[in-house]
Amino acid sequence: MTESVLDKIRIVLVGPQHPGNIGAAARAMKVMGLSRLALVAPEQFPHADATARAAGADDLLEAAQEHDTLAQAVEDCRLVIGTSARERRLPWPVVDPRQAADKVLSDDGPAALVFGRERSGLTNEELDLCHAHLRVPCNPDYASLNLAAAVQLVCYELRMTARTVQPQPLSEPLATVGELEGLYEHIREVSQASEFLNPEEPGVLMRRLRRLLTRAEPLASEVRILRGLFKSLDPRRR
Amino acid sequence: MTESVLDKIRIVLVGPQHPGNIGAAARAMKVMGLSRLALVAPEQFPHADATARAAGADDLLEAAQEHDTLAQAVEDCRLVIGTSARERRLPWPVVDPRQAADKVLSDDGPAALVFGRERSGLTNEELDLCHAHLRVPCNPDYASLNLAAAVQLVCYELRMTARTVQPQPLSEPLATVGELEGLYEHIREVSQASEFLNPEEPGVLMRRLRRLLTRAEPLASEVRILRGLFKSLDPRRR
Repeated sequence: MTESVLDKIRIVLVGPQHPGNIGAAARAMKVMGLSRLALVAPEQFPHADATARAAGADDLLEAAQEHDTLAQAVEDCRLVIGTSARERRLPWPVVDPRQAADKVLSDDGPAALVFGRERSGLTNEELDLCHAHLRVPCNPDYASLNLAAAVQLVCYELRMTARTVQPQPLSEPLATVGELEGLYEHIREVSQASEFLNPEEPGVLMRRLRRLLTRAEPLASEVRILRGLFKSLDPRRR
Repeated sequence: MTESVLDKIRIVLVGPQHPGNIGAAARAMKVMGLSRLALVAPEQFPHADATARAAGADDLLEAAQEHDTLAQAVEDCRLVIGTSARERRLPWPVVDPRQAADKVLSDDGPAALVFGRERSGLTNEELDLCHAHLRVPCNPDYASLNLAAAVQLVCYELRMTARTVQPQPLSEPLATVGELEGLYEHIREVSQASEFLNPEEPGVLMRRLRRLLTRAEPLASEVRILRGLFKSLDPRRR
C-alpha cells in the first residue's frame, strides 16, 4: 500500500560525480520503499562502486532511466522539487523535507525530487525547472550532508507521509478499570497494614501511586503479578 | 538556540563493530547540530577508519565518552529510547523517529537515543533499560538501513523538532536510570524475602515488573514513594 503510493515518485540525481553515491542513494531509496531512480548525465555509470554500495538494491540501478538533461528527466512530472543548499536572491518557495513529501504526495500525478552534483549542486537553469526548492535543515557551521544522506532523509519523509497507520493489536488484554481499582484497593490495604499509609492523614500517596501505574496502561497479567507480590508482602499474613 | 536544546541529547552506540560507522555516525550527528556521542564497548576505537569517515566531525570522536555497559552510559539520563528492529512479544511503547524526538525534547533532563550492534542490535537486557523502543519505518521487504543512516534520520528529526519545541520543564524531574535500577533491586530483595520470588527459578517476574514501571516514566519522587512502601512491607523488618 505504502509502496504503491510511493511508486509515482521519482528520485533524480543530476550529474553525480562518484558512482558509489549512486549505489548508496539506491539503497537509501529501497529501504524506504521507493523504486524509481533517474540519472541525468552521470559521470560514470554503470560502475562497480555503484553496485557495491547498492548492497542489494541493484535492481534499482538496473531499472534506472538515464537522460541527457533534467528537462527530459522530469518532462512528464506534475511536480518537481529540487534541492538547493544556497540562499538564492530571487524569492522561491522553499520547503523542508517534510513539506516536500506532503506536497508531492498530496497530488496524484508523477512527481520528482531532484538532487544536484556533489560539489556544485543544481544550476540556476535546473532550479528554474522546479516548482519548489528543498532545503534540509542543517547545522549552519557544518552543513556537510552527503548525497546519499540527503536522499535518505527525503525518502524517509516520503515514507512517513505515505504510510497509513496500522494500529497493532496487543497480544494480551489491558487490565480493566475494575481490575485496576482492585489493585489500588489492595495496595491501600497493605500500606495501612504496614503503617506506611496513615488512614488519618492519607495525603496524596494513593493518588500518586494510582497515577504512576495508570499511565503505564497495565496488562491484566501485570496487575495479577503486582497483586501476587503485595499479597506475599502483606504484614497481616504473619 | 537549536544547538543548545540539542546539547542535552546523547547518541549512544552500543558495541559498534565497524569503526567507519562510528565516524559516519559522528558526521551525521554534527550535520544536524548534535555533539554528544557515547560509545559502549566499541570493537575498535579510536581507529583511522572512524576519523576518515567523520570528515570534519572528528571533534565529536575526540570528545566521545566510552563505557563498558549501557547501564553506565545512561545512568544519569531521565529518558532513554533504544532502537529495535524486531517485533517483541511483550508490549512496550514503540515510537517512530519523530515521536522519539518529541519525547526527548519535551522534557528538559538529559536523554539518550541508543543504537545497537550492526548485526544483532540491542540485547533484551539493554532494551529493558529503555523507556521506549524506536522503530524506523522501513520497506518490509528490504529493511537494510545502515547504522549511520539510522543515526542521520533520528538526528534530523531532533533538529526538526528542536526548531519549534520549547522544552517544558516538568514540575518535577523524572527518575534517573540509576534511581530506577535501585528501585528494581529493592523490589527483587523484598520479593525474595517474602518468597514471592524464588531465586532458583526467577522466571520473568523481575523483567515484567521492570517493564511495567519503566514505561510509566516514573518521577524521582514516585520512586521514593515506592521505595518507602516496599521498605514498610519488607518481611526482614519484623
